[in-house]
Amino acid sequence: MGRLAEKAGENLSALRNTKPLIHNITNFVVMNYTANALLAMGASPVMAHAEGEVEEMVSFAGALVLNIGTLTESWIDSMIKAGKKADALGTPVVLDPVGSGATSLRTASAKRIIEEINIRVIRGNASEILSLRHEESKTKGVDTIHSVDEAADTGRILAEELDTTLAITGPVDLITDGKHVVRVANGHPLMGYVTGTGCTASAAIGAFCAVDPDPLSATASALAFFGLAGEVAAEKTDAPGSFMIALIDALYTIKPEALREGCKIQGA
Amino acid sequence: MGRLAEKAGENLSALRNTKPLIHNITNFVVMNYTANALLAMGASPVMAHAEGEVEEMVSFAGALVLNIGTLTESWIDSMIKAGKKADALGTPVVLDPVGSGATSLRTASAKRIIEEINIRVIRGNASEILSLRHEESKTKGVDTIHSVDEAADTGRILAEELDTTLAITGPVDLITDGKHVVRVANGHPLMGYVTGTGCTASAAIGAFCAVDPDPLSATASALAFFGLAGEVAAEKTDAPGSFMIALIDALYTIKPEALREGCKIQGA
Amino acid sequence: MGRLAEKAGENLSALRNTKPLIHNITNFVVMNYTANALLAMGASPVMAHAEGEVEEMVSFAGALVLNIGTLTESWIDSMIKAGKKADALGTPVVLDPVGSGATSLRTASAKRIIEEINIRVIRGNASEILSLRHEESKTKGVDTIHSVDEAADTGRILAEELDTTLAITGPVDLITDGKHVVRVANGHPLMGYVTGTGCTASAAIGAFCAVDPDPLSATASALAFFGLAGEVAAEKTDAPGSFMIALIDALYTIKPEALREGCKIQGA
Repeated sequence: MGRLAEKAGENLSALRNTKPLIHNITNFVVMNYTANALLAMGASPVMAHAEGEVEEMVSFAGALVLNIGTLTESWIDSMIKAGKKADALGTPVVLDPVGSGATSLRTASAKRIIEEINIRVIRGNASEILSLRHEESKTKGVDTIHSVDEAADTGRILAEELDTTLAITGPVDLITDGKHVVRVANGHPLMGYVTGTGCTASAAIGAFCAVDPDPLSATASALAFFGLAGEVAAEKTDAPGSFMIALIDALYTIKPEALREGCKIQGA
Repeated sequence: MGRLAEKAGENLSALRNTKPLIHNITNFVVMNYTANALLAMGASPVMAHAEGEVEEMVSFAGALVLNIGTLTESWIDSMIKAGKKADALGTPVVLDPVGSGATSLRTASAKRIIEEINIRVIRGNASEILSLRHEESKTKGVDTIHSVDEAADTGRILAEELDTTLAITGPVDLITDGKHVVRVANGHPLMGYVTGTGCTASAAIGAFCAVDPDPLSATASALAFFGLAGEVAAEKTDAPGSFMIALIDALYTIKPEALREGCKIQGA
Repeated sequence: MGRLAEKAGENLSALRNTKPLIHNITNFVVMNYTANALLAMGASPVMAHAEGEVEEMVSFAGALVLNIGTLTESWIDSMIKAGKKADALGTPVVLDPVGSGATSLRTASAKRIIEEINIRVIRGNASEILSLRHEESKTKGVDTIHSVDEAADTGRILAEELDTTLAITGPVDLITDGKHVVRVANGHPLMGYVTGTGCTASAAIGAFCAVDPDPLSATASALAFFGLAGEVAAEKTDAPGSFMIALIDALYTIKPEALREGCKIQGA
């Protein structure tokens, strides 16, 4: 058993023991599902986006998760404000550039956040990650039109340029800090039929970053855990409505030992 | 078997094969459920409402769905902007005038959208549809106080005046373009105990309009499919929480042949 | 069997017979769940927050529920406007001061609402209630760091000062109007793993206030009913995803007789 599998189990225990507050500035579509997923896995979620309170709220948080899924200009301002405060406090910030590459506003907003804040981990699908480096790269709404492998090289270069960790999720997730590459093979195709599974994976990365200062192992733990929950849920049902509920159940019931044994983390 | 039943099965196949992007500018209450329903039936949903991106987003979409359920003035502006762009591109626009008739803001907003944009299909309950023609007609919050039959004549006249297709939903749905009348008898009373089933029916109409240029058959297909999913869900449970989940499951599992055989479409 | 148990059964019957419109100005996270819960219990929910329509909307409502969970300044303005109209009409107003004590904006907003509007019932966790009287009292995001008993004395004094009814919810809920104290022991620990159960309890209080003019018995009925639904749901499952769905089912299936017999209301 690898070091990262060992670490995944330890991280899940730490998460459930410390119940860190995770501050989310996220999109309207996934707020409820994300909050329920964070509660089920053992974290304490809060959603707050008012410019007048984000700095105060993030000061109690173990991590800040920024998600541009239904962005408007004023929300981006709040994200920047919260992110700068988190930066100053050394609190990890996770970015989910939802739909970057689909519209200029999204691509520009994602880039602005990356420029102004030190992001611990960026998680996106292949098209979203490509759009962060290649102006011309496109995304179909919020769905990828590229494979993880197509984005792998750009991902490694981008991670190095930005001095951050990137997670490109797909059938097999790729995590890289520019020097190391880790792959996570957990997950199930039905996850693509539930809205916000990507967003919720990003929130899970935030929760694991709150208990593990190493972005590579925190991200691998989170994605293996979330993917394993998908596998467990798929044992109960083969349709997406009951699957999304069974996934929440699995985030609550999976024990650290089961994660250690069930995670499919390769590399690093 | 009628032409419209045949068409319903074909439309569902086309939807699953082409996975059109459906751009929704909709209300906060139903965003998650609508997105999950669209994914389950085979479409690719995106929610985007920022004035700075709606024109770009709708340019990739197979249909635009406008829903005034938790409207504010700035959201209506975005709807108009997105709708005009869709118009220019020939992309079908569906309007759900949620709560029109309950407040002056809602009635006026629905009428403004109808005046400024060519709407392919308007779907509402009887009170909402009546309010679009009769200033004095009232709606109880977002619930109807009129029967579908009470709104039938006004519906036919309104469809003709506006040169659009109207769907008045209720126990038996009525669809009219002013000349033809189609009725769809699929559905289940528990659908009235799940928030956003009307809104989601409108989103389904958008998805079917993306694959069928005939608004009458696209709308009949969508409402028969959505109603049949309610019937299938009601075989699993008789309480609304598990019903709303089973309904999502059914949108995923119902096959085109089952829709062709199970749809209850009369007329035209 | 006590008077309040008798009353709880009567109130549930009245709710299902009259289906009052409940106007919610609430947070993005819980809108969908709250609407589904209100529908399941027998009420007719509407969510509307535009300054241009809240006065008109609340004029049809049986109760107004204000919830500051994802507040911004403009939403508070709408809450004040709706609340003043409700006041003028004698319509009960329920306040849920979500996260009061976590940030200055939340504490100040809750206090502003309380000063400007006659609130029928305020429901919060112990930390939120304490923060309404003690400037220095803190809340961890939206989670309490105090027990119900720690807030009991402050709650009684505050209820008297504000001439309102306070509900401090926790493992055993405490309801007080400053003179009387009622405790409700229904509920289940899994409710703490579902986002928005507190918010939905507040909405339930709104629904029961629409049919019962006595805030003490309306609140006791609502909390006993909601807690009993949690107990019924916990008989079906022991994980939070399926639990949140089973809870909605229970709100629909519990009959007035079952509430009368299953409620655990003490005092008054």
